[in-house]
Amino acid sequence: MRASAFRFELHNVDRGCAARRGTFHTPHGPVEMPAFMPVGTQGAVKGVTVDQLRHTGAQMMLANTYHLTLRPGESIVEKLGGLHAFSGWPGPILTDSGGFQLYSLAQMTKVSEAGAVFRSHIDGRSLELSPERAVAIQEALASDVAMVLDHVVSLPAAEDVVADAMQRTVRWARRARDSARRADQALFGIVQGGLDPELRAECAAALTQLDFSGYAIGGLSVGESPAEMYAVLDVTAPLLPADRPRYLMGVGTPTDLLEAVYRGVDLFDCVMPTRNGRNAMAFTDAGGLRMRNLSLAEDKRPLEEGCPCPACRHSRGYLRHLFMAREMLGPILLSIHNLTYYQRLLAEARAAIGRGEFVPFRQRKLAGWRTAAARADRAGP
Amino acid sequence: MRASAFRFELHNVDRGCAARRGTFHTPHGPVEMPAFMPVGTQGAVKGVTVDQLRHTGAQMMLANTYHLTLRPGESIVEKLGGLHAFSGWPGPILTDSGGFQLYSLAQMTKVSEAGAVFRSHIDGRSLELSPERAVAIQEALASDVAMVLDHVVSLPAAEDVVADAMQRTVRWARRARDSARRADQALFGIVQGGLDPELRAECAAALTQLDFSGYAIGGLSVGESPAEMYAVLDVTAPLLPADRPRYLMGVGTPTDLLEAVYRGVDLFDCVMPTRNGRNAMAFTDAGGLRMRNLSLAEDKRPLEEGCPCPACRHSRGYLRHLFMAREMLGPILLSIHNLTYYQRLLAEARAAIGRGEFVPFRQRKLAGWRTAAARADRAGP
Repeated sequence: MRASAFRFELHNVDRGCAARRGTFHTPHGPVEMPAFMPVGTQGAVKGVTVDQLRHTGAQMMLANTYHLTLRPGESIVEKLGGLHAFSGWPGPILTDSGGFQLYSLAQMTKVSEAGAVFRSHIDGRSLELSPERAVAIQEALASDVAMVLDHVVSLPAAEDVVADAMQRTVRWARRARDSARRADQALFGIVQGGLDPELRAECAAALTQLDFSGYAIGGLSVGESPAEMYAVLDVTAPLLPADRPRYLMGVGTPTDLLEAVYRGVDLFDCVMPTRNGRNAMAFTDAGGLRMRNLSLAEDKRPLEEGCPCPACRHSRGYLRHLFMAREMLGPILLSIHNLTYYQRLLAEARAAIGRGEFVPFRQRKLAGWRTAAARADRAGP
Repeated sequence: MRASAFRFELHNVDRGCAARRGTFHTPHGPVEMPAFMPVGTQGAVKGVTVDQLRHTGAQMMLANTYHLTLRPGESIVEKLGGLHAFSGWPGPILTDSGGFQLYSLAQMTKVSEAGAVFRSHIDGRSLELSPERAVAIQEALASDVAMVLDHVVSLPAAEDVVADAMQRTVRWARRARDSARRADQALFGIVQGGLDPELRAECAAALTQLDFSGYAIGGLSVGESPAEMYAVLDVTAPLLPADRPRYLMGVGTPTDLLEAVYRGVDLFDCVMPTRNGRNAMAFTDAGGLRMRNLSLAEDKRPLEEGCPCPACRHSRGYLRHLFMAREMLGPILLSIHNLTYYQRLLAEARAAIGRGEFVPFRQRKLAGWRTAAARADRAGP
């Protein structure tokens, strides 16, 4: 059922690993991949205007079906012209289906074969989310890419729980596919299966037969170790069609991104740059900076030499002052810096893959972060 | 002791009232007057980057001596290059002296002839602020315009209390003037005297003899009615030298600004645009909009037709959603809109004075706001 307005153009695979350089064409413009999507859960990236977001280098934004159907409701978004007009973001938008909330709001959720029933985290009222309903909401929101409703469970979990959720995810994916109507909206399937290679393979095979416009790897970053996550990518990514984008949901640290790109992943989203930014942690090539640290009080340097973001036109000392003085400009500037850091990292990755040199690029970056981490350990807490 | 790097150029006085069109030249550029200064108490306008602030049309920013000496301390601001490098604001900066905190933090302050002793609102430690110390701090901060330490009392107050504070303000102003050293920093005197025309006149005469680079009218917006404030302006503004800028401190509503410009005031500061913005109130030519109002939920219009600010690229419905969903982008966008509204109002005022048509301009604006207020009253609470 691939929507014809979408096309994934694979430019090259790195000569030393599975990293892919591609372009995903959408009705709201191309996305150069690998790409990172900033998270605008409620139709806004926290603390960042669309102009500022564009200047970070972001190409595609993520928003969330569960949150938007609760507030303001998809009919209001639709009346206000759909998510693009609503949020003011002119580029492509992907909406998550609400499947992740089956995990993050598990205490308030009941899952049956029909779908999920949530109690709203806002006012306790009941919300039913079936595979068909999740598609209908996303069609009303008018995102470029809709995600199927999947069944996400926390890890570790018993094998029968993981298998059951994976098989339900496949059945739901078929129902979602059969109910999708918009030609200008792509639908991505989501591979589940926990840490079990056979379940992941079974899921990938079943979903591939359903011919989605792209494939996500879901159910990760839910309690497992980085090594376990990378092992899942090692077995799953090669089973996905080479001519469709591969999206690793909700991941992750800069290290996670490079490890996943190395294994053939094309697309990411994560709250980490904005959430850490609000919590006074800045990403740099020399590791994380804790902005409340006294050692920064008189530091004239920017967070990162050569970074073009508005935070890096200030000194570390000023940014520290903003956090100590509880000025909201601190969280704002650090969120923008971290988003810019992620976008620059992905832009560098794309260039490295284009040259066929992703392997040494990844080694260099990982070594820089490791050195910084070791230095921080020696310095003590 | 006028600092030679400063010059007030009076272009014209309106043909129908005392409104003045002038340019105040400073080492960090000219300020077209009448002008409104956004408030960056701690060296940052709340929620607004310097780029965004520049785009509102702001020319000159205000920061606060009391707050900055407590945190981060003027020596740190000095080490980080002074307030301009610290805040990243390239234009002129005026610092208030801390005199207003004698009023706003009266419970934590003791005033003697030597100066004021505060208990810090942050950690309770003691802070001494003499007229000389207030100048020294502002010289370390390296603002373009420093304010003398004045003695602000809340109104209503007994006549002897007001007279005593006014006379102390004059004595402190002389001490401040005698201790000022920087040729690249102007010092403004502050007229006190409560609502008493004779005390105001006595203060204006005494300060004028001290030959400041500019004169502020202080001790207003501290409990009196608008009519009482305008009466003070009626008697005070004409007594100030025509060749120096006149600054009405801490004022006020859009109506207050036009009434004060009408009476010959050149410069303003107020937290209202940002504070109201954070509290979901938007200024428009048709009066204030409460952004949480249900009637805005599906409203596709911008806050104000023709407003160039980033908030006005969104619908009222989206902005309402941001406030209902507690997204920090709501307070950010509304702060920027309100600052832009104030700057556009002053720019229109300058143009009207330049044409000699401030009187009909003021009438038109006031009538628009009054009509909106009457409509809101009829609609009920």
